[in-house]
Amino acid sequence: MTQVGEMLRSYPADLGRVDRDVLARCIEECLSCAQACTACADACMSEADEEMPMLRKCMRSCMDCADVCDMMVRMLSRHTEYDANITRAMLDACATMCRSCADECERHAQRHAHCRICAEACRRCEQACKDLMRALG
Amino acid sequence: MTQVGEMLRSYPADLGRVDRDVLARCIEECLSCAQACTACADACMSEADEEMPMLRKCMRSCMDCADVCDMMVRMLSRHTEYDANITRAMLDACATMCRSCADECERHAQRHAHCRICAEACRRCEQACKDLMRALG
Amino acid sequence: MTQVGEMLRSYPADLGRVDRDVLARCIEECLSCAQACTACADACMSEADEEMPMLRKCMRSCMDCADVCDMMVRMLSRHTEYDANITRAMLDACATMCRSCADECERHAQRHAHCRICAEACRRCEQACKDLMRALG
Amino acid sequence: MTQVGEMLRSYPADLGRVDRDVLARCIEECLSCAQACTACADACMSEADEEMPMLRKCMRSCMDCADVCDMMVRMLSRHTEYDANITRAMLDACATMCRSCADECERHAQRHAHCRICAEACRRCEQACKDLMRALG
Repeated sequence: MTQVGEMLRSYPADLGRVDRDVLARCIEECLSCAQACTACADACMSEADEEMPMLRKCMRSCMDCADVCDMMVRMLSRHTEYDANITRAMLDACATMCRSCADECERHAQRHAHCRICAEACRRCEQACKDLMRALG
Repeated sequence: MTQVGEMLRSYPADLGRVDRDVLARCIEECLSCAQACTACADACMSEADEEMPMLRKCMRSCMDCADVCDMMVRMLSRHTEYDANITRAMLDACATMCRSCADECERHAQRHAHCRICAEACRRCEQACKDLMRALG
Repeated sequence: MTQVGEMLRSYPADLGRVDRDVLARCIEECLSCAQACTACADACMSEADEEMPMLRKCMRSCMDCADVCDMMVRMLSRHTEYDANITRAMLDACATMCRSCADECERHAQRHAHCRICAEACRRCEQACKDLMRALG
Repeated sequence: MTQVGEMLRSYPADLGRVDRDVLARCIEECLSCAQACTACADACMSEADEEMPMLRKCMRSCMDCADVCDMMVRMLSRHTEYDANITRAMLDACATMCRSCADECERHAQRHAHCRICAEACRRCEQACKDLMRALG
């Protein structure tokens, strides 16, 4: 079991009916996506001078997406007094952010490996958020 | 002018049709709300032993709300390659979070001054998010 | 009194011997500095194509400084089980970060108003961190 | 290779002489530690009413440590215009924070599995920060 899964198992109160594997998966994908986005925004900044201007939107999306995914990790790592409406609203917003960032990163995936890896992380995170929304009912 | 307003004015590209005062106000309320929520969660933790268990939901809400408002400040402080759909989705989620946190803090406002002040900050932030959504059209 | 000051006053336990005005001031300067740094990194990204490459170090410093100041705001907004050694170590690191970011932003202050405003916010924050370190003894 | 390692490899400029495995390891341990700390603070909050007051220091440490490690992940994920002095100062502060949080969590490790797992994550993160400091020279 991963550490995220172990922490879920050690939660001392009732987690409700949520599928723990789906929840753990979503936390892990948000962690990966946040890190990939921070690194991709930075890598874009270190591309050649003439490349940088074409990567403005990519940098912006990656910075936003890192912030949103960091927030999502924290919210999903808390279970005390769980509020389904808040969680669903945030998962929906996070999935929207990840899809948008993936779309932009994909446009540069052939030229820049960091954009390709980041786009993949965003797609997995978008899917994990949607899977968790379904699991929450 | 506040520093947030000065930074908006110094942005070198086009900010679009957004009302700068409404945008600056929203950034400032998100900053205040995030700080109040972090402080309120901590103050709850320092209440008397027999009070703490009644403040679980308040602590949880405040921690989430601080994370969401911190993310919102960052997103609203960026204007490069602005995406109206993402911004609106996040403002909507942020307003929902603030309303929920305000509702919970208000329940303890008479007993705890920090909950009263925090509830007020959350209400102002909720309103500022809604005002900005309207201003964005 | 500012809201940061009001939250400090509403803390239900003993704040120790710290000067509340110096503490409140430091929290406020960290909040301002974090916001200015996020906005300055973004403004750099929207400068003309030929300017961007000269602003790499500025963007990098601003992004780091925003992250450090955000962390500092949170730590200073908590008073439960205060640990002087941790607080001092972080204030020292934060002051170092702010000085470094101010130095870099100042190099561009004449060309870009956002760099000038950001450098000033970093300087004030550096000073506020040092003042608080002294006040903590 | 992990995704963190893949992102390091895709960085388009010179990473300098740093040992990439040590750097990737440190980023991963900071990610794990931040998540464990957020989850442990929350789990403490859901312990039985009579346990909560004994966990105040643990909750506080975990919240601070999560904030510091999140900041550290971001700083270590950026390589543009790397500044050895800033990085070393932050790694030192982060190691101090992790050691302190591990010490506190260990005091509750026998009673609470989440404290045991979190203490282990903090110890690994402290070590990874020290290893990276050595690798940076």
